[in-house]
Amino acid sequence: MSYPDHLRDEVESYLEDLRFSAEPAADGLEEAMRYSLLAGGKRVRPVLALATANAIGVDPRTVLPLAAALELIHTYSLIHDDLPAMDDDDLRRGRPTCHVQFGEDVAILAGDGLYAEAFRLVLEKQQGLPADVLAAVCELAAATGVNGMVGGQYIDVKGLVESGATTLRRLHALKTGRLIAASVECVVLVSGREKLGSRLSPFGQFAAELGVLFQIVDDILDVTGTEEDLGKPQGSDERHGKLTYVSQYGLERARELAAESHRHARTALAAAVPGQADELEQITDFIATRSS
Amino acid sequence: MSYPDHLRDEVESYLEDLRFSAEPAADGLEEAMRYSLLAGGKRVRPVLALATANAIGVDPRTVLPLAAALELIHTYSLIHDDLPAMDDDDLRRGRPTCHVQFGEDVAILAGDGLYAEAFRLVLEKQQGLPADVLAAVCELAAATGVNGMVGGQYIDVKGLVESGATTLRRLHALKTGRLIAASVECVVLVSGREKLGSRLSPFGQFAAELGVLFQIVDDILDVTGTEEDLGKPQGSDERHGKLTYVSQYGLERARELAAESHRHARTALAAAVPGQADELEQITDFIATRSS
Repeated sequence: MSYPDHLRDEVESYLEDLRFSAEPAADGLEEAMRYSLLAGGKRVRPVLALATANAIGVDPRTVLPLAAALELIHTYSLIHDDLPAMDDDDLRRGRPTCHVQFGEDVAILAGDGLYAEAFRLVLEKQQGLPADVLAAVCELAAATGVNGMVGGQYIDVKGLVESGATTLRRLHALKTGRLIAASVECVVLVSGREKLGSRLSPFGQFAAELGVLFQIVDDILDVTGTEEDLGKPQGSDERHGKLTYVSQYGLERARELAAESHRHARTALAAAVPGQADELEQITDFIATRSS
Repeated sequence: MSYPDHLRDEVESYLEDLRFSAEPAADGLEEAMRYSLLAGGKRVRPVLALATANAIGVDPRTVLPLAAALELIHTYSLIHDDLPAMDDDDLRRGRPTCHVQFGEDVAILAGDGLYAEAFRLVLEKQQGLPADVLAAVCELAAATGVNGMVGGQYIDVKGLVESGATTLRRLHALKTGRLIAASVECVVLVSGREKLGSRLSPFGQFAAELGVLFQIVDDILDVTGTEEDLGKPQGSDERHGKLTYVSQYGLERARELAAESHRHARTALAAAVPGQADELEQITDFIATRSS
């Protein structure tokens, strides 16, 4: 399956070069942050950001700070999700999770630190008109707050989802979808083309659908993936009694929903950027058909 | 002792009116956030922000979003510090801490959510030129990241402070001082007067010294304060084996250092705003002589 690996390489090398601590005594905190940040993976969010830049005619390298910030935020959310008080997972990408490796106190702070440094990165390094950078950072905060990632995570850990398609879709829109969508939207915003990225535009619809697709496939993989592919124990959703697309609809119907969502995303993308979005198409197909 | 209570009232009522969740299922998260946010206290950071606005001739009400964000951030840091994996404190301002009341998972997310919503608040609501708002938010992120609050907290929980005055001062500059200083500096920045707030300016020196003073007094109060005044058990630093101004210098010398720091802060303030900073003087004196 093709994937824009040249964009991933750009991201990877930018992340590798990031340093956070100017205080020797806090170097151990930076070590924990980098341990989790540099654990590999497809870097879907930042790659999506760079591909969006290409699709709207912006040099991808100019949005690297923003792209990297998305990965810092994603990493922080994984570290906190893995904590004993949350999902209590010991393994992530085939390695001990942050709190297993460094202790719970350090893991909490590593997550907090990554989130702070994500904002600092964009605010200090991201090019663009101040008003456009502000709009992008604001979306980043909104997408990760109570009406985004953290709110979704709360609904999830408290098991507050009723059995009903709308609510499950809504949970996932908050928990996972909004940051995926923000990976597209923030690049549009920072480039000063906010209309392009509004929720009602084809670009906005593409971004939102991609978030849904990502989560349906995640739910399917939790059941069908191998521990080797996933880098974590299979069946973890079921053990935590989580309501997922698979638990709610069964595997077969979940697969149909994924295929449907995949078609919707491709249609919205074609309407948004006619004929010049190879990388975004590749990422969309990758998200639909990935095995980890 | 006089304190600018009119400013605190402004802050209190602004905080009371804040709502975070647009998603009914996440209302329980908002409840936990508001439980900790609305636990009272002197609101030193936001009051300092409003007083700074007055001192530089800016209407304090125009910086309320920024001021409130400082309190959201302070509250998030308290919630995470109180967690069992960190300081493991059950009592805060005379009430059960967030994790005791709502569970550890919710407390972690309430902290995360408050931090996200703090950024959103400033980015969405704070008036000012976009470039000035960016500069202020950037300082907010820097002051709370690895080279600020979170880095200081890491050094503290890992007990990495060597016995040496410089390092103890540095720890506290990071852990507590930088957010106190940012309460002054961010207002200066958002008002487009960045030169005024640079580290070398009298205003910057005042802000930094105030942070030091705050922490020395905190260390003293942990030993001399009553549980009723403090709203938490007395002697908690000693139980956690923390290096403090009192453990390092003894109570008497710590009191002298506080008096010295108080004088420095007043001198810097007088140089920064000659003859028109009543509220900042009151706050400085309050920080030096408070009993909780």
